Amino acid sequence: MGPHPAVAAIRLAVRRVLHDILTDHGCALDAPGRTRRAPGQDAPAERPPSPLVLVACSGGADSMALASALAFEAPRLGIRAGGVTVDHGLQAGSDLRADEVVLRLRGLGLDPAESVTVRVGREGGPEAAARDARYAALDAAAERHGAAAVLLGHTRDDQAETVLLGLARGSGIRSLSGMAAVSGAGGRYRRPFLHIDRQTARKACMVQSLPVWDDPHNADPAYTRSRLRHEGLPALEKALGKGVVEALARTARLSRDDADALDAWAGQAEASVRDAAGLLECAKLYALPAAVRRRILRRAAIEAGAPAGSLFARHIEEVDRLITGWRGQKAINLPGKVVARRQGGRLVIRQG
Amino acid sequence: MGPHPAVAAIRLAVRRVLHDILTDHGCALDAPGRTRRAPGQDAPAERPPSPLVLVACSGGADSMALASALAFEAPRLGIRAGGVTVDHGLQAGSDLRADEVVLRLRGLGLDPAESVTVRVGREGGPEAAARDARYAALDAAAERHGAAAVLLGHTRDDQAETVLLGLARGSGIRSLSGMAAVSGAGGRYRRPFLHIDRQTARKACMVQSLPVWDDPHNADPAYTRSRLRHEGLPALEKALGKGVVEALARTARLSRDDADALDAWAGQAEASVRDAAGLLECAKLYALPAAVRRRILRRAAIEAGAPAGSLFARHIEEVDRLITGWRGQKAINLPGKVVARRQGGRLVIRQG
Repeated sequence: MGPHPAVAAIRLAVRRVLHDILTDHGCALDAPGRTRRAPGQDAPAERPPSPLVLVACSGGADSMALASALAFEAPRLGIRAGGVTVDHGLQAGSDLRADEVVLRLRGLGLDPAESVTVRVGREGGPEAAARDARYAALDAAAERHGAAAVLLGHTRDDQAETVLLGLARGSGIRSLSGMAAVSGAGGRYRRPFLHIDRQTARKACMVQSLPVWDDPHNADPAYTRSRLRHEGLPALEKALGKGVVEALARTARLSRDDADALDAWAGQAEASVRDAAGLLECAKLYALPAAVRRRILRRAAIEAGAPAGSLFARHIEEVDRLITGWRGQKAINLPGKVVARRQGGRLVIRQG
Repeated sequence: MGPHPAVAAIRLAVRRVLHDILTDHGCALDAPGRTRRAPGQDAPAERPPSPLVLVACSGGADSMALASALAFEAPRLGIRAGGVTVDHGLQAGSDLRADEVVLRLRGLGLDPAESVTVRVGREGGPEAAARDARYAALDAAAERHGAAAVLLGHTRDDQAETVLLGLARGSGIRSLSGMAAVSGAGGRYRRPFLHIDRQTARKACMVQSLPVWDDPHNADPAYTRSRLRHEGLPALEKALGKGVVEALARTARLSRDDADALDAWAGQAEASVRDAAGLLECAKLYALPAAVRRRILRRAAIEAGAPAGSLFARHIEEVDRLITGWRGQKAINLPGKVVARRQGGRLVIRQG
């Protein structure tokens, strides 16, 4: 008898990502299991040392399930498996809980298994500050151990929530593209569970008798994501049907590819709309599709010093009207003291 | 003292669209108000007859507000204003109500003002069938009267709902792009209120003492849109904040531009990836960005006979794996008995 379907699902998801990691690191596979090597890519002459893959584990169901699947699959592929838990120090007793998670990771056979303590700042709100501190700590842990990758337990439900949060910003398809399956410097972070729902992860913990910890923050209505999870998304499912989470996750994938393609187009087109002095020519900008033109304008504003996070769609729309609706407007003020003006058929975007 | 802000807002929205209609029809403006003529476009030698603009009016607040603004603005621009109400025959007494709407339109000074009765079929569900019948009747009325345009009362709230409905399909950014400000053959349909919220339209009716009719269908939880309006969207606003409707409407505009640009790219790229016999070359498809490649695959499937409405993102993803994840898969069955297979480095998509 094989494993429970939930356990089979999480293991398969992790196995696929481990194969990808091996391929990306040019490792030969001497262990059982499918190999995936890009066509024409030869095995390296000398085998590198057995790579280490870490799992970031909060002790919650998603990341405990991920840790269990990594512990099971890694040895079969000649990979070393380790785990890190981050103590954000935001709740009384969080250090004790972190120690407990480390014991559980060790119990799964992960080595190294460690807890790192971070100091959460205030920048960008409590959620963003905690996230920044967490990734900095994970980056440091990955460097310290020379890890080939760090696995993150984000599920399809997390992805759906992220898409809705992006939708609420209304800043275009890049903000709809959610979390990437592969991200970070050199593709360090991998999210094997973006296709797995939260329920499956929880079930996999249950049938493996893994104790899980429910972060009270996840149910705290003070947090936008928590309100979305417990009220917004269920109401949306009630109105639109059970397929909403999957549809949102698919929207993320499609939007990401679309945004990548349009960014690439804008990157290529940018050179062709600048004159010899490097200034943007309005007539040439006008001839481009609006989607490409606005991306070029956004890039130009950021290059001139406008902070990306404060530059909204309405700012770019206003600059765009210097091109598409020119009637002698005055200069347009953008965040970061950047000013956009039209002068003699050229668009001048600069600070001050 | 000027008009109430709500009335001023709806009139401005209609005035802008009427200017656009005059510009598009090459009409000189001899009435007060700003003129908008494309650069280099001369006034026609002979003035065409005074154009007619119709409003589609259900008798509800949105379209009654629209009718009142059209009645006010059109004469000032030398435009004739008329109105049409569609009797779907789905509720007892709908004919009497339609007659009443006609009287109200006449009361506003619209001429012609008429009711047209349609027979709603069953295809695509009750909402889609009613919509198809309605647009067919509006098309016929526009033809019959030689109307330059038909105004539709969709508001920003309708747009937000449409985006969420598209999101629930999860079929990509085209389905997130909501309703266009200009659509139909020759740009016949115009939606002046896409930036106006439902509350403003209702307020404008109230302060003008216009009686409005609340369609019971709009509150019937049997309809997806109604559930969305009364439960889904309010819950989302509660979780994400009041800006959600505006963010969704902005997402629609941005997504539409993005989808247009990518469609144009795919259209241009398609010729370059076909061999002399017109077959798609896998190597050349592989080199394209995923977003462009999948659009080409979708176009090819539709051209081969797959019905666009039954062709989902997952179908195209599967065909795409013949290019990006080739491991000797068998042929892939698509809707409309279309089959996609890889043969000798070519992708063959055809019926049967």
